[in-house]
Amino acid sequence: MLMTAGDYLESLRRLELNLYVLGEKVENWVDHPIIRPSINAIAMTYKVAHEPEHEGMAVVDSELAGDRVSRFNALFGSTDDLVTKVKLQRMLGQRTACCFQRCVGMDAMNAMYSTTFEIDQAHGTEYHARFKEWLKNTQQKDLCISGAMTDVKGDRGLAPSEQADPDLFVHIVDRRSDGMVIRGAKAHQTGTANSHQMLVMPTLRLREADSDYAVSCAIPTDADGITMIYGRQSCDTRKLEEGDIDVGNYSFGGQEVLVILDDVFVPWDRVFMCGEIDFSATLVERFAAYHRQSYGGCKAGIGDVLIGATASMADYNGVRRAAHIRDKLGEMIHLAETIHACGLACSYEGWQTAAGNYQANTLLANVCKLNVTRFPYELCRLAEDIAGGLLVTTPSEKDFRHPVLGKYIDKYLKGVADVPTEARFRMLSLIHAMTFGLTAPSYRAESMHGAGSPQAQKVMIERETDMAHKQGLARSIAGIDERESILG
Amino acid sequence: MLMTAGDYLESLRRLELNLYVLGEKVENWVDHPIIRPSINAIAMTYKVAHEPEHEGMAVVDSELAGDRVSRFNALFGSTDDLVTKVKLQRMLGQRTACCFQRCVGMDAMNAMYSTTFEIDQAHGTEYHARFKEWLKNTQQKDLCISGAMTDVKGDRGLAPSEQADPDLFVHIVDRRSDGMVIRGAKAHQTGTANSHQMLVMPTLRLREADSDYAVSCAIPTDADGITMIYGRQSCDTRKLEEGDIDVGNYSFGGQEVLVILDDVFVPWDRVFMCGEIDFSATLVERFAAYHRQSYGGCKAGIGDVLIGATASMADYNGVRRAAHIRDKLGEMIHLAETIHACGLACSYEGWQTAAGNYQANTLLANVCKLNVTRFPYELCRLAEDIAGGLLVTTPSEKDFRHPVLGKYIDKYLKGVADVPTEARFRMLSLIHAMTFGLTAPSYRAESMHGAGSPQAQKVMIERETDMAHKQGLARSIAGIDERESILG
Amino acid sequence: MLMTAGDYLESLRRLELNLYVLGEKVENWVDHPIIRPSINAIAMTYKVAHEPEHEGMAVVDSELAGDRVSRFNALFGSTDDLVTKVKLQRMLGQRTACCFQRCVGMDAMNAMYSTTFEIDQAHGTEYHARFKEWLKNTQQKDLCISGAMTDVKGDRGLAPSEQADPDLFVHIVDRRSDGMVIRGAKAHQTGTANSHQMLVMPTLRLREADSDYAVSCAIPTDADGITMIYGRQSCDTRKLEEGDIDVGNYSFGGQEVLVILDDVFVPWDRVFMCGEIDFSATLVERFAAYHRQSYGGCKAGIGDVLIGATASMADYNGVRRAAHIRDKLGEMIHLAETIHACGLACSYEGWQTAAGNYQANTLLANVCKLNVTRFPYELCRLAEDIAGGLLVTTPSEKDFRHPVLGKYIDKYLKGVADVPTEARFRMLSLIHAMTFGLTAPSYRAESMHGAGSPQAQKVMIERETDMAHKQGLARSIAGIDERESILG
Amino acid sequence: MLMTAGDYLESLRRLELNLYVLGEKVENWVDHPIIRPSINAIAMTYKVAHEPEHEGMAVVDSELAGDRVSRFNALFGSTDDLVTKVKLQRMLGQRTACCFQRCVGMDAMNAMYSTTFEIDQAHGTEYHARFKEWLKNTQQKDLCISGAMTDVKGDRGLAPSEQADPDLFVHIVDRRSDGMVIRGAKAHQTGTANSHQMLVMPTLRLREADSDYAVSCAIPTDADGITMIYGRQSCDTRKLEEGDIDVGNYSFGGQEVLVILDDVFVPWDRVFMCGEIDFSATLVERFAAYHRQSYGGCKAGIGDVLIGATASMADYNGVRRAAHIRDKLGEMIHLAETIHACGLACSYEGWQTAAGNYQANTLLANVCKLNVTRFPYELCRLAEDIAGGLLVTTPSEKDFRHPVLGKYIDKYLKGVADVPTEARFRMLSLIHAMTFGLTAPSYRAESMHGAGSPQAQKVMIERETDMAHKQGLARSIAGIDERESILG
Repeated sequence: MLMTAGDYLESLRRLELNLYVLGEKVENWVDHPIIRPSINAIAMTYKVAHEPEHEGMAVVDSELAGDRVSRFNALFGSTDDLVTKVKLQRMLGQRTACCFQRCVGMDAMNAMYSTTFEIDQAHGTEYHARFKEWLKNTQQKDLCISGAMTDVKGDRGLAPSEQADPDLFVHIVDRRSDGMVIRGAKAHQTGTANSHQMLVMPTLRLREADSDYAVSCAIPTDADGITMIYGRQSCDTRKLEEGDIDVGNYSFGGQEVLVILDDVFVPWDRVFMCGEIDFSATLVERFAAYHRQSYGGCKAGIGDVLIGATASMADYNGVRRAAHIRDKLGEMIHLAETIHACGLACSYEGWQTAAGNYQANTLLANVCKLNVTRFPYELCRLAEDIAGGLLVTTPSEKDFRHPVLGKYIDKYLKGVADVPTEARFRMLSLIHAMTFGLTAPSYRAESMHGAGSPQAQKVMIERETDMAHKQGLARSIAGIDERESILG
Repeated sequence: MLMTAGDYLESLRRLELNLYVLGEKVENWVDHPIIRPSINAIAMTYKVAHEPEHEGMAVVDSELAGDRVSRFNALFGSTDDLVTKVKLQRMLGQRTACCFQRCVGMDAMNAMYSTTFEIDQAHGTEYHARFKEWLKNTQQKDLCISGAMTDVKGDRGLAPSEQADPDLFVHIVDRRSDGMVIRGAKAHQTGTANSHQMLVMPTLRLREADSDYAVSCAIPTDADGITMIYGRQSCDTRKLEEGDIDVGNYSFGGQEVLVILDDVFVPWDRVFMCGEIDFSATLVERFAAYHRQSYGGCKAGIGDVLIGATASMADYNGVRRAAHIRDKLGEMIHLAETIHACGLACSYEGWQTAAGNYQANTLLANVCKLNVTRFPYELCRLAEDIAGGLLVTTPSEKDFRHPVLGKYIDKYLKGVADVPTEARFRMLSLIHAMTFGLTAPSYRAESMHGAGSPQAQKVMIERETDMAHKQGLARSIAGIDERESILG
Repeated sequence: MLMTAGDYLESLRRLELNLYVLGEKVENWVDHPIIRPSINAIAMTYKVAHEPEHEGMAVVDSELAGDRVSRFNALFGSTDDLVTKVKLQRMLGQRTACCFQRCVGMDAMNAMYSTTFEIDQAHGTEYHARFKEWLKNTQQKDLCISGAMTDVKGDRGLAPSEQADPDLFVHIVDRRSDGMVIRGAKAHQTGTANSHQMLVMPTLRLREADSDYAVSCAIPTDADGITMIYGRQSCDTRKLEEGDIDVGNYSFGGQEVLVILDDVFVPWDRVFMCGEIDFSATLVERFAAYHRQSYGGCKAGIGDVLIGATASMADYNGVRRAAHIRDKLGEMIHLAETIHACGLACSYEGWQTAAGNYQANTLLANVCKLNVTRFPYELCRLAEDIAGGLLVTTPSEKDFRHPVLGKYIDKYLKGVADVPTEARFRMLSLIHAMTFGLTAPSYRAESMHGAGSPQAQKVMIERETDMAHKQGLARSIAGIDERESILG
Repeated sequence: MLMTAGDYLESLRRLELNLYVLGEKVENWVDHPIIRPSINAIAMTYKVAHEPEHEGMAVVDSELAGDRVSRFNALFGSTDDLVTKVKLQRMLGQRTACCFQRCVGMDAMNAMYSTTFEIDQAHGTEYHARFKEWLKNTQQKDLCISGAMTDVKGDRGLAPSEQADPDLFVHIVDRRSDGMVIRGAKAHQTGTANSHQMLVMPTLRLREADSDYAVSCAIPTDADGITMIYGRQSCDTRKLEEGDIDVGNYSFGGQEVLVILDDVFVPWDRVFMCGEIDFSATLVERFAAYHRQSYGGCKAGIGDVLIGATASMADYNGVRRAAHIRDKLGEMIHLAETIHACGLACSYEGWQTAAGNYQANTLLANVCKLNVTRFPYELCRLAEDIAGGLLVTTPSEKDFRHPVLGKYIDKYLKGVADVPTEARFRMLSLIHAMTFGLTAPSYRAESMHGAGSPQAQKVMIERETDMAHKQGLARSIAGIDERESILG
């Protein structure tokens, strides 16, 4: 049963999250103005599933569930599914202009599906069947699942078990007959305080000594022992102010929470990895490849909004046809489309796992993400160039609504004669939100660090290339190895 | 008499500004938490004048005043003065980590000094003597002067007199026996609501029809008819919260106001240009060259703080010696020093005006600024890379001070074992302020648009080059013109 | 009947080209050492058609010919065909390390196929049937066809009919009962002096006055009235020297000729456009989209060889594991794969023309090519960085073969102990050929200008984007237009 | 006595070099067409010393020689001298459009001067007096001196004494009563086969075991035991062809030779370092700082010619006023001037050594050079963009001189009507020489590797920065250390 956006909101009200914002526990978190935009962004993923024109994108027939299910909860059954995922992400990026937070879960599920299959093959365990059962329920109930990978990590130079505090990576502190108990914290959790469950995964390749850290499981977001602390966002308290202009993006926003897992109990039927260190890297890399692919969709879509906003500012300023403006807008489009092209390419070039679902091409997914760590920054720079200095010097909406000041502002912040000052004001505020303010983390910092920092991609790119083949080509052409005869 | 920082603060209290912040008129604006950091930043320019180790930098013997005066109010008497200016700016950028706002006035005074001299030569006017008298008083009283150039401009495709509303550029609405009356607004006014006077200048090259727009004069910031509206800054209301961490830079900040000039009267002895359209471009370009030079100082200094903060985060994360981190830190230093090198070069290569003071080399000053429209953005990108995702996901200081949450945060946001979590938290917050938050406009948007947008520099660079000479060189080498004989 | 590489060579011997090299008419041009490498490169396209492992790539079932034909002469029947084209091109780039010249014809045929169909629809002409007949013969005989688009153009600011000399664009000078006569010249003709026929096309959008310039037809390369002048290549005469090292790439090379068409007669059955100015732009843009796609294959493949050569030099110098070397090699791979990803994406996202064959996605093909005008240059720069200064200071092979000097060189140009000096010498020479020498034009200048210069791509990218849609997205998010309700 | 260019040429004829070009010993090497352009380039340094308008740049009063001497043989007596050096280099780069090769010697002399002084202080040796005596003679005779630093190095991962062959770095093989004997080879020797003497220096920091490698001395270029092998240059044999167009730069060129030192005897009075490993790094770094400064002059000057040539091609093609062309030309100027600004800044900010001469600022000199490893490549890319594809497809001069072909070429390669085709041909050929051909190594590879590869600069930049100071600034602003009080 596919929930509507309204169903989803109601379902959240039934969760009793232990959630803190700005030092205070929040009871009615669903309607909290700082949190709500992030809920709306996920709600959009529920809404599109009911739009006839997007049904093919957003809804999938699931053999497992015996029903039509959300693509966000579905397995990728083909490279076409991977492509459609990226196009769905672009469309949602276009409509929310921020991170809509539901991809981590989708990518985690798919990585878990193939990895549990391979763990079972290697270790004779039964994780895959458990996971399928869990997934079936998730699909049928149309739950929203967040993926919880990133540990807080402490000293990056030390392995989990070498840290001064063993809890700096999530680990098993007790194995009981009915389940296990875990402790630790997951940082930068996107879309967790608006999900029904979280799917916990290890964060890096593990060694023998770290076997208690090889843990994967599903946990309800309101389980005992969980504390969530909402991360500050640039300009976050503007959402507490009156008015709808200064926030820039009134309806939608991202969300990142610090999730404390203080001895959380997990029954065995929701445990999908428990000590199998030899599959930690597999799980991490599969998830990473999916999620690096994802950015070829959403970040292109967010870029589309920024491009549209920037072109509009050029219109409002009366400079749209200037050659240097057109050149810069052309460059912005070029960069956004390069990102998307990489997202498409790694999808089309995907491969089938032993479990049967599809992975994006690892090399190209990493190439996609490495471009994402660069191009949105240049898009922001160009947007700031074209938008003009007013971007960071506009008065507040309160000034604009003020009986005296408002007239001054209306008069003096006018651009071309036929566009109302308020439109220009609003468009500036949107660009501000995307480059400095509330959704800037979605477009800048998340592009940098989400799904792994650029160095992680560089390392994978070097590793995934068949350099020996390339060197052989060079040796042959150079005549070090025998040259190829065209007649041979 | 050189004011101390304390004197300066007291002097501000005597001003009766008509200043609005977030829709409300502010009475005690000197102590207003949103405004105060910008006052502190200017106060720093007063403080350094009393530091023995910076006396040579910050204080100058003025023949005009017959006294030691602030460099910020002095004429550049040599290329060495230009160089010292840039080094002073770097030092102040290092100590405030933001725009300290007093350079616009300094640069405006110097541009006005040589331009009024030339107007008088051409038109037989007496502006130069008037201006010198005004400057002498300014120096002797150690006033803080802001430069007011940027008009709101309306439709960028139209000249001032072609706009739908004639007030979109500041212009003379009445010429009286005792003075003139002006109307209009100046946008993005840096350091005006913490200055004693503003020096009004036209914003672009003017044509015959625009003669009422060729206006320059000095006005007290609390003159009748002036309304100032404080521009919103990213994360501005964090300054209204308790605590000192989340603002990132607690002490210092920039400031930009929209200044409405609603029929402001200016007596003739403070009018320095009144209709001489043929010198509008001269004034604008001289000011621009000085101010483009300035950015080779301050933005390098702000960069130093960002580099130091980023290296510290690398320390705290335990990754400082990683090759890719060192490479990125090296790149950040390289970019900041390239900016500074350009600032120094255009200073050393300055030239003397007919009036006797010195101008920075126009070509190199534009080259300096064009680099400034690019490199700080890359510095921010690299800082965000090294700082890590926590940059945009940290909890609030309120969470950190909370009895229960605080313990979790202290435990889980710890990096290397020997650095307190709070230090890491504070350093992240500083970087956030510089890349997203309160001082990000000082380092990003101002680098882009301050002293003119990049296209303005490109145009000047093309114009200032002797392309005919370069083409002659090429023709000779190519043998199109006669080749040079080494024996000849 | 698919020719072997040997058959192809023999077929060329039967052509009587009027071809000049370095001021002299060449009789046995097939064995001319300056020309032969370019023939070998095309021969490789014939060779691969007989390799079982590449059959799926290189050979296609043609309904038209009723036979298996070369992909280089085939219509793209699906997006998969477009993808396979790009992969074939990468493989051939890897094996020749230069332009293998046969793509222009392939791309021209496909553009002509759909355009003639549409001309006939609009004008009631019979070009499409004629073209199909010609194509059938081409496929059946497995001919090598070059595409001849680029006119010499004279003053770029003037239309064809406005030029001082009307012949600066190819045009019809006579229409006779049996055919037409054309005059003009085509510049930078890649792979014409090793093709059987050339397919002439107009070079730009045409206006009414230019109707004699709207001309397309097929001409044998040895037709009366044709003169070909072989373009100089960097280091071209090294191919006339003894030895095989200094040329860098002994077997393969590109080729560009200036083709003079001095009143060449073309019978009507080989005329495919004759005055239909309204389809000139269509033909040009379709060809351009195909050819901009092509560069996502070949230039990635050439890049692979350069990467392999550079990694080998790092091995030979003993620095392969240094962090900065690995980072730079990783960057090279990243850039080459980004190009390829764009080539793949525009292929997968292709569309079917009215005539039935498939076009690459226009926007993404232009994005692909615009990246190609940038990244190979950075690849060369990085290769030069890693290869070291010896790249441009090595002695000659003659020195190396000299009884006395050879010993010195062998001793002193040795890198790591276990690699022979000659291997290092050869690898350097290959990199030199790719960055400065014989094949540098294939990788640098052709990446810049082939299929149109970067500005052409920028213009197309701006035009192909639905900016109104992007602006609508921004207006909605900003609240200028009605905001989207998630419950709506 | 300052030699004229003619005197210099004659002086070279008196040298009996053991010099090989393309496998053959060259007797009349002064008139050898492959070598002569490099001699001409140095001759230009002699010529300018006699030009009244450049006397201040090119000639210096030497206390040591008691005479006016060439700046190329002079000590830098002030920061002004450092600045003038850079401006002289730019002027010479403009007039030769290539490396004029005499700076290595100038930079080596100055580094040696201060280092020998410090060695003597530390070790009680007498190198400084010896060196001054040698320098006095050099100045008085106006000799041309090359600097010989770069060893062939073998395996870069091993120290000199660890190499499989001990001769891979130049070292002392015998110490005799009258002098020492050295063996080894110096690679990429710029301007050695047109100098009178070479100044040998070690190439890197040395350890205890490498004391025989800490060797510095002066050697006549025609000393017994020396063999020089002329490095191949791109398109070198075009200089052996008739005509003057295809070489691109007919008069001038660079030169790099491999110098074999096969047991060369050096009398003690020309030995300036002999085993003092503790000063090897000092010498290398001082030389490097000077030479990295140098590139802020010459490479800007060469860039000027490329910019002029590119603008001319835009003129000839009729596109000079197009906005995108102007933007790219503006960018080229910007990049060349940024290089020059860095060269000037490191000069103005120089410091006095204990011996009394002046060093460029080390940090800024490295910043200068690191930009030089990047910007000339982008200048070449932009030049290739604007020049058009014809850059790599022009026929030969022989074709142009051919009675029949010449008419075709004249007709069809014409650009705008009022510029002769030959001028366009020549300008293309010059750009080709600078980007692919004879002088491309001067502008590309030498910019990359001359005075050390980019990684060497990155390392120095990191080392020369006071990071602790920057971190202190950040800690204070962040409130980790005590915040600065503006009232304090």
